[in-house]
Amino acid sequence: MNQRAHVASCIREGGIYCLTAEKFSLGRSNEEVVRAMLEAGIRIIQYREKEKKGGMRYEECLRLRQMTREAGAAFIIDDYVDLAILVGADGVHIGQEDLPVAAVRRLVGENIAIGLSTHSPEQALAAQEQNVDYIGVGPIFSTQTKEDVCAAVGLEYLDFVSRNISLPSVAIGGIKEHNLAMVVQHGARCAALVTEIVGAQDISQKLDALHTIMRS
Amino acid sequence: MNQRAHVASCIREGGIYCLTAEKFSLGRSNEEVVRAMLEAGIRIIQYREKEKKGGMRYEECLRLRQMTREAGAAFIIDDYVDLAILVGADGVHIGQEDLPVAAVRRLVGENIAIGLSTHSPEQALAAQEQNVDYIGVGPIFSTQTKEDVCAAVGLEYLDFVSRNISLPSVAIGGIKEHNLAMVVQHGARCAALVTEIVGAQDISQKLDALHTIMRS
Repeated sequence: MNQRAHVASCIREGGIYCLTAEKFSLGRSNEEVVRAMLEAGIRIIQYREKEKKGGMRYEECLRLRQMTREAGAAFIIDDYVDLAILVGADGVHIGQEDLPVAAVRRLVGENIAIGLSTHSPEQALAAQEQNVDYIGVGPIFSTQTKEDVCAAVGLEYLDFVSRNISLPSVAIGGIKEHNLAMVVQHGARCAALVTEIVGAQDISQKLDALHTIMRS
Repeated sequence: MNQRAHVASCIREGGIYCLTAEKFSLGRSNEEVVRAMLEAGIRIIQYREKEKKGGMRYEECLRLRQMTREAGAAFIIDDYVDLAILVGADGVHIGQEDLPVAAVRRLVGENIAIGLSTHSPEQALAAQEQNVDYIGVGPIFSTQTKEDVCAAVGLEYLDFVSRNISLPSVAIGGIKEHNLAMVVQHGARCAALVTEIVGAQDISQKLDALHTIMRS
């Protein structure tokens, strides 16, 4: 299976999409956190790291690439197309204001997946017309406060995607254990959680709890 | 002449190496400033822009690439290897803590120049052992205050480079009209100035003055 098919399959089969966030990881390194994720059976991991220098990111991603490869998990890099190519990542994730999809495709070729963040029905429909392998759908909730659970824009947009978009999709943004069931009820089969996982004292236990909600 | 030879030749022939810095450009866009630089005969321009989103950088660099190409000037992009490849830049400039030179070379191939910032004799000597096309030498002076003109580390290091390093080199860091002659006296044939140029009311007049100093 090539890398794009691998990424699409990991997202379509559903479950938890994990991201790194070292500053919220209770002093643990990205490597420690990713090891715990892989041991808990996570199938797809995105490296998101804006604060380190490029050389540090490169060394770290070489190690994470080896770990994810050994575990058979898909490895995605946020934003840095050059880094994704260099370390042999399975995909690169970009936002609406990053390099255009067509330009990224020219760089990565036909074997590396491109994930695109989308925030509206218009953007999801546009993504289907581009050479994108999956979309991020969110933010479902505010990522600043937990009180925003009922901010309806995200959930309505998730409904739209569940009903109208055939691309693999990942719900993201402010998702926590306590609101994950609602995200599943609105059609998400794959959900991304960041601080809820990397900030858990026991990552394995947290992922077990999240997986139980996803399956119920 | 290929791109690497073009960059090396522009630096070896000496003169002023210009960089963008939109926030110090008195409200002018990078395009306006670069146009003024090219009209003044500048042969090499580096795009340095950390604050804009990737899509904005891409659009801007496409335009700057066209302008520099029409003027026969070399166009270098700071830090973003993917962007440099996409817009057909002549070179990419990296720092000691960015992606390693060998990794950048794998990405850009043999036709695009790599410039590397160096801050010590050890780093300059190491650069000669790598596949680097030119080095930055600095900071010659503090880039924070003008009172640091006599901080000797930069000038001593510049002496070392002038005497011992055969790679093309660019002196950089805190260089202003008032201290440029000193930089030239210590052996610099090519000097980079940032705010002194982009922040000048009359960029053409400023470059004329700087060129006069370089030639004297």
